[in-house]
Amino acid sequence: MQSEEKFTDDEMYLLVDTVMKQNYAIELVSSQITDIENGLMDVGEEQYTRLLHLYHKLRDLGL
Amino acid sequence: MQSEEKFTDDEMYLLVDTVMKQNYAIELVSSQITDIENGLMDVGEEQYTRLLHLYHKLRDLGL
Repeated sequence: MQSEEKFTDDEMYLLVDTVMKQNYAIELVSSQITDIENGLMDVGEEQYTRLLHLYHKLRDLGL
Repeated sequence: MQSEEKFTDDEMYLLVDTVMKQNYAIELVSSQITDIENGLMDVGEEQYTRLLHLYHKLRDLGL
């Protein structure tokens, strides 16, 4: 997760807040999951599992 | 920023990492800035300024 090292916590909160306000969270996470399942991206089994959990949480929260 | 309270730090890192890997960070931030400038969204002067800084940082980092 090297990209996070470039940003302050405040910047990350702002980015997460922006993703939510733009109603794009679940879209992004499902695209990432699709890319992994299609072999376009390899993030490892552990991160893939965490993405699935995040996807279900976003869906349950209606985000 | 109520949406952040629903997520653990780990989930937020994962979401930020996903935004980066999907190459969608600057797109989202610029859409948010456009919505604010067009009066479609009101986040207050301070957050608008922080969004502009984040936009320039993302552009400078080529993200």
